[in-house]
Amino acid sequence: MKNFYLTPGPSQLYHTVPDHLREAVKIGLPSWSHRGKDFKDVYAFTRQQLFKLLDVPEGWEMIFLNSATEVWERLIQNFVSDTSLHVVTGAFSERVSLFAGAMGKNNRNIVVTENEALEPEKFSSGYSPEVLTLAGNETSTGYWISKEEVKKVRQRFPETLIALDVVSALPHYEVPFDAVDCFYFSAQKGFGLPAGLGVWVYKRSMSEKAKLQGIAPYRQFSRLDEMASSDQTLATPNMLDIYLLGKVCEDMNRRGIQMIRSETIYKATLIKNLFQSHEALQPFVKHHDFQSVTSLVASSPTAEELIAQCAEKGWIIGSGYAAFKGKHLRIANFPAHSKELIEGLVDFLS
Amino acid sequence: MKNFYLTPGPSQLYHTVPDHLREAVKIGLPSWSHRGKDFKDVYAFTRQQLFKLLDVPEGWEMIFLNSATEVWERLIQNFVSDTSLHVVTGAFSERVSLFAGAMGKNNRNIVVTENEALEPEKFSSGYSPEVLTLAGNETSTGYWISKEEVKKVRQRFPETLIALDVVSALPHYEVPFDAVDCFYFSAQKGFGLPAGLGVWVYKRSMSEKAKLQGIAPYRQFSRLDEMASSDQTLATPNMLDIYLLGKVCEDMNRRGIQMIRSETIYKATLIKNLFQSHEALQPFVKHHDFQSVTSLVASSPTAEELIAQCAEKGWIIGSGYAAFKGKHLRIANFPAHSKELIEGLVDFLS
Repeated sequence: MKNFYLTPGPSQLYHTVPDHLREAVKIGLPSWSHRGKDFKDVYAFTRQQLFKLLDVPEGWEMIFLNSATEVWERLIQNFVSDTSLHVVTGAFSERVSLFAGAMGKNNRNIVVTENEALEPEKFSSGYSPEVLTLAGNETSTGYWISKEEVKKVRQRFPETLIALDVVSALPHYEVPFDAVDCFYFSAQKGFGLPAGLGVWVYKRSMSEKAKLQGIAPYRQFSRLDEMASSDQTLATPNMLDIYLLGKVCEDMNRRGIQMIRSETIYKATLIKNLFQSHEALQPFVKHHDFQSVTSLVASSPTAEELIAQCAEKGWIIGSGYAAFKGKHLRIANFPAHSKELIEGLVDFLS
Repeated sequence: MKNFYLTPGPSQLYHTVPDHLREAVKIGLPSWSHRGKDFKDVYAFTRQQLFKLLDVPEGWEMIFLNSATEVWERLIQNFVSDTSLHVVTGAFSERVSLFAGAMGKNNRNIVVTENEALEPEKFSSGYSPEVLTLAGNETSTGYWISKEEVKKVRQRFPETLIALDVVSALPHYEVPFDAVDCFYFSAQKGFGLPAGLGVWVYKRSMSEKAKLQGIAPYRQFSRLDEMASSDQTLATPNMLDIYLLGKVCEDMNRRGIQMIRSETIYKATLIKNLFQSHEALQPFVKHHDFQSVTSLVASSPTAEELIAQCAEKGWIIGSGYAAFKGKHLRIANFPAHSKELIEGLVDFLS
């Protein structure tokens, strides 16, 4: 029996990935020099297709790192000399704060529970953090912060560098480019790629800011930016994943981002309806406006049985994160998950 | 025309990699949870096959990072509070020293040029560095430090943590486990894998040492070690490459490391003979004992023409590193490079 992975990441490969992998091996891509023209062309192609898909404006650039976790590290190393502020809506948005603390920074949190609305208008602006982080989609809890809410956060912190975690929200999430300075994601979620690549997209003016601060003695942002602008990385990157990302973005562009987004909303609606109608399922996040569209989380007294029943049909859905294991189920809703798959799953669980 | 990559890395894929990639996709490995039993089994299998291949003794463990470059960073973060010492035989062994400097450490170098023998007996032991780094094979120059020389270095620095770079020397290189505390390599060289994985193999007692020093507030070695001992990584790793590494090591074990090593020596001899007999080629490293076996470097006034002539035949050989571009040619001699391939190349160039 073939399994389908509805886990929030690693997740189902996008359906074109196996063919692109074969092609990459056929053309010898993993053996190419990462400093040669052929690979630089791949890098540029990936940028072009990704930026087209997400409608990234002029003046933005991207850096390839190894994971979203590494983005956290480089973000804090380069931009926080003293104080960072973290909107904590679950375990991952908390972890970046813990990283900042471990790196000796004055890390402050605004904790928002699953029972609360975000209410950015109430965020204190009594202190001025250098960096503010928040998650468009918090993968552990399914707490969603829409672009409208992000814009309200920006109003409270007009001068702060705002870094938006869209690890499991893209490509569906529409990034508010005027309200954030950078955003980042990893390959193994919504883009349906093998794990091992983090992508950090940013306003190029961030590089000047990093130079002025000059607090990272190592892996300086301005050096990363400089390499990126010549279609290169500092160390040998996961070339295969960079190639695959470009190809998958091209496929998604052919299909059209509007089509992908409307299908995502359709599938999310099916799953949300299931959560509301099923007697053993409750959406974990209470306020409808803050419920995830791309990784939907329900609490359930029978979570493990439901997960096991799905697994028997070959549908692998996620269990609760960390302390919520056995209490939640998490269903990813990425472009790799077809309408038919979600319809079948929801029918089965209904 | 199909190209064969004799570049020192990224290099030719080991011939079984395409089949293993197909199998990985077929079994859905890229979609598995990196915390689940199935993937932990893959991790354990890879350890078992790698340790068998390299004959790693009891009491050693391995950590998966993203590159050898990241190993440098975590090594210095965790083990150098003040002074590090670096045996510099080329650009890569110098770069780890530059990293240490950038990270605020008192980095001292022992520079050994291509015209010199190593002579560890003359190394000063007037200071006591916490960490000493050296490269079994310096990829940029082809300077080779045999295990016998490493043992002499250990005699001069009995208390220092010695980290051996075998990035482009394995699996041929026989690591002197009694003379070093750890060694590391990356996937895209001698193991013939796609780039995006660094492997750090170490005596587990290093973890205790790191705890005692307690200088890394972030990415603590003891946490990395703890995760490794339960077949896990801190962040989602390059699962595909970890799987492929295990499979390729299994294939190499079937063939037998002795067979692989004797073929490597045979091929190295052919290339060294070419360097000696060809009027336009000179081994860059003068002393025979310090000439690389796994990435052979020649200086030549006609380097670029020779590289271009080989490229016309589909043999992609490396040009000189950085300032040596146009002045050197570098020929990798990894298990992925067959005897027939090297014989053909040497015949053509003779």
